[in-house]
Amino acid sequence: MTTDSAVVLAVDVGGTGLKGAVVDAHGRSVVLREEPSRAAGRNVEENLLELLDDLAQDAAARGVQPVAVGVGAPGTVEESSGTIVYASNLGWRRFPLRAVLEEATGLPVAVGHDARAAGRAEHLASVTSGGTGGNFVFVPVGTGIAAAIVVGGVALDGARGAAGEFGHVIVHPGGEPCPCGQRGCVEAYAAGAAVLRRYTARGGRAASSTAEVVARLGADAHADAVWADAVRALALGLQGLTMLLDPAEIVLGGGVSRAGRALLDPLAGELGQLLAWRAAPPLTTARWGTGAGRIGAALLAFERAGIVPEFVPPTR
Amino acid sequence: MTTDSAVVLAVDVGGTGLKGAVVDAHGRSVVLREEPSRAAGRNVEENLLELLDDLAQDAAARGVQPVAVGVGAPGTVEESSGTIVYASNLGWRRFPLRAVLEEATGLPVAVGHDARAAGRAEHLASVTSGGTGGNFVFVPVGTGIAAAIVVGGVALDGARGAAGEFGHVIVHPGGEPCPCGQRGCVEAYAAGAAVLRRYTARGGRAASSTAEVVARLGADAHADAVWADAVRALALGLQGLTMLLDPAEIVLGGGVSRAGRALLDPLAGELGQLLAWRAAPPLTTARWGTGAGRIGAALLAFERAGIVPEFVPPTR
Repeated sequence: MTTDSAVVLAVDVGGTGLKGAVVDAHGRSVVLREEPSRAAGRNVEENLLELLDDLAQDAAARGVQPVAVGVGAPGTVEESSGTIVYASNLGWRRFPLRAVLEEATGLPVAVGHDARAAGRAEHLASVTSGGTGGNFVFVPVGTGIAAAIVVGGVALDGARGAAGEFGHVIVHPGGEPCPCGQRGCVEAYAAGAAVLRRYTARGGRAASSTAEVVARLGADAHADAVWADAVRALALGLQGLTMLLDPAEIVLGGGVSRAGRALLDPLAGELGQLLAWRAAPPLTTARWGTGAGRIGAALLAFERAGIVPEFVPPTR
Repeated sequence: MTTDSAVVLAVDVGGTGLKGAVVDAHGRSVVLREEPSRAAGRNVEENLLELLDDLAQDAAARGVQPVAVGVGAPGTVEESSGTIVYASNLGWRRFPLRAVLEEATGLPVAVGHDARAAGRAEHLASVTSGGTGGNFVFVPVGTGIAAAIVVGGVALDGARGAAGEFGHVIVHPGGEPCPCGQRGCVEAYAAGAAVLRRYTARGGRAASSTAEVVARLGADAHADAVWADAVRALALGLQGLTMLLDPAEIVLGGGVSRAGRALLDPLAGELGQLLAWRAAPPLTTARWGTGAGRIGAALLAFERAGIVPEFVPPTR
């Protein structure tokens, strides 16, 4: 098979959904599939295997054969062994994901950290579009919150693969309990799951997604209050991140970033107010949109297959 | 002149004192001199020039000729041009320190960020002693507080030379005013200057140094209270830093780290309590002690002179 006709199966594993795609060597998603992470009451790995099976059939129906599988997963990921050390939203602890998937699919599998993989995709997009390039932070705000700290084009992984846990930086000491067991984490206020939970707890009207809460801003005091808390927590976390890392750009991704200006504008305002003696880095949204995780997973898969893909990123 | 007989003049510029040395290519400080940063009511650059002049004379008296000058300075430092972009404790804003010193001394001068320079010295010590090597954070706690974030042996400088401002991470939103203009910074509670100021403000007995306050721990409720606040602020800052960077080791330096176990033990305890689902990185004190900044400045100077020194670091 030539590089040109090679495709990979890519999945971005989130706390709420599994986003899958068949991706070709130009970075085009020729098939897209999404499923709830816990569909049909099964555990995440069972749904993941079913999704990969469906994607493989989609590929076969198009006459292409996948050469590898790439998966981006949240939490603490040991990329060398493909082990999920700990992922609170998925119930995985020391889970040998790569081994499980290679056994089941018979394909070479690459397992990476979702945010770091998405950060690679954003880096690629930034480089090809003349952006700030190698020094930025990518912060996917979804069910949970993470960060890819990209320095010189490489996403830092830390001493034990646990770098980038931006969602669990404590911004309100002794504050809101976080599902992770700590109190006052960024994620306990600003993640999609937290916004929904806190909106409901305050007596907000029934809502099934953060987008619904965002749509009520300005017309629903409960929505306004939980959103203000979310923005404040993100701003406090980004204040510390800016002090430590001085990034050229802060790129927001994940489902919550679909709020667009309703998120970016108040966030830039709060961050600017917290910073007394330096400007805030530019705040933007992901060039690949909410697809950054899938594209990052596809990059990992092509790498695993020994193929250098030629992705053509979207322009802003 | 052979490399073996080469010496450099090295100065670690702090908010309180200027620590100077004549350092040979084995990392030995053959002369040590310290002066207050604002001695005799003069500004910092005048005292720095006088100190360099004294060190040059010390070198001449020993029959050695300095080949270069290295200076580590706090704040935001643009290393390529040797400009101090902003240093709140010194009153410098866009100050062309390298140009001023080269003009005055006639020697090649290297100007670096104090904490990043010290981080290089610690990295050298770590590598030669089989330590955790290339991935750690060095946090000098002195009059002010900074950090060198060492990744793969290199201290991150950020997009505009402003990385590592750990002292100005906000840990208590809306809290204690910081001299930097923000509120609730780590430095507003935990820097040497802050501990002294807060101790006096609470009605503590006359004290001229943080060491005196530390010596009263367990016997003076004011000392206990301000020290607990300092430890808490450091722990909160290090919690966020650990989440973002997952360092293999956190190395504390600077004058306040002379407190030793009185700092390390409660700090490790607080940090461990804040972290619910991962262990804290090991907390240690600098291998070069409070001399790390001077040795780091000497490394910069040798590099500027094109000489590869063979420093022999102390063992722990």
